Amino acid sequence: MARGRLTPEREAELYEAVLDLLREVGYDALTMDAVAARTHSSKATLYRQWGSKPELVAHALRHNKPVDIAEIDTGSLRGDFHELLARSDDCQMERDSALMRGLAHAVHDNPDLLQALRDLLVEPEMTGLDEVLGRAVRRGEVSADNPALRLVPHMFIGAFVARPLIEDRPVDRAFLTDYVDAVVLPALGV
Amino acid sequence: MARGRLTPEREAELYEAVLDLLREVGYDALTMDAVAARTHSSKATLYRQWGSKPELVAHALRHNKPVDIAEIDTGSLRGDFHELLARSDDCQMERDSALMRGLAHAVHDNPDLLQALRDLLVEPEMTGLDEVLGRAVRRGEVSADNPALRLVPHMFIGAFVARPLIEDRPVDRAFLTDYVDAVVLPALGV
Repeated sequence: MARGRLTPEREAELYEAVLDLLREVGYDALTMDAVAARTHSSKATLYRQWGSKPELVAHALRHNKPVDIAEIDTGSLRGDFHELLARSDDCQMERDSALMRGLAHAVHDNPDLLQALRDLLVEPEMTGLDEVLGRAVRRGEVSADNPALRLVPHMFIGAFVARPLIEDRPVDRAFLTDYVDAVVLPALGV
Repeated sequence: MARGRLTPEREAELYEAVLDLLREVGYDALTMDAVAARTHSSKATLYRQWGSKPELVAHALRHNKPVDIAEIDTGSLRGDFHELLARSDDCQMERDSALMRGLAHAVHDNPDLLQALRDLLVEPEMTGLDEVLGRAVRRGEVSADNPALRLVPHMFIGAFVARPLIEDRPVDRAFLTDYVDAVVLPALGV
């Protein structure tokens, strides 16, 4: 596809608008018309550049780069988790949470979208977590055969999803810090 | 509203069809036309009986009664959790999971729906869990001031949401049993 016709700045602007719409209305209600109106571009341009709505959304998701957590190395697992949370901002957490809500149903029926969401929000976190947890195992803080090691992403996703559902409040740094201390570290035997 | 014109059996049939559609297409794509077609009723009847789509969906959610977990009392927390899982069937877990996915975005913008989802899937589980956890505290298995006590629902919701997202597999009894032993009980100090 002749994607070269858009400047990188324009492309980034377009992808950001698609992600905003996803957070606001969800995947099903997101239309190419709405994207065209929001970005002041023509539907013809959108279809010529991306072919279809799932492809456009998948590209927009892939364009949004998350932070690298593997580089955090404070010398203890508790220190690494707390530093990770200190570097995250509440606003970005709420935006990622809104993105997951907007896509929750759509990804189940659309393998391409599920893969894009995994590449964006799941895999980098998992790889970074694996690195942080691997160091804790090498330091002897966590036993290598602790079955909770592979369930750390599940625990964190639970915190993200359950906080708005049960408490009607968005996730924030204070809550996640309590959660790490009360759930994640004790489950790992730290 | 003159809901008396439908028999209880017919009403139950209608609610079940609404929940099936919710699981299949999600809230946004669920139309009164689709409900009418699926249940061989007229849209006029649906609007006369329930007034609007959010009201119909909220009634359908409230009609679906979950199991009572507070009555499980084996004498130990591990025993209670395992018994709870032994009584749940994999099919129902996947159906509840599909329902949550279908509603994830819609509930965020619709306080009535959020309340109905809480009444259906969250509150009864929370009340049952509180009872089971309270007995564990009274037996001395869990310390009354353990901060993980109020985070048990978050841990379980994480298991339900993360399993399909990360592993591309539905939750089932075997996975949840491992999760209880590896995460929930250790976080509670059991």
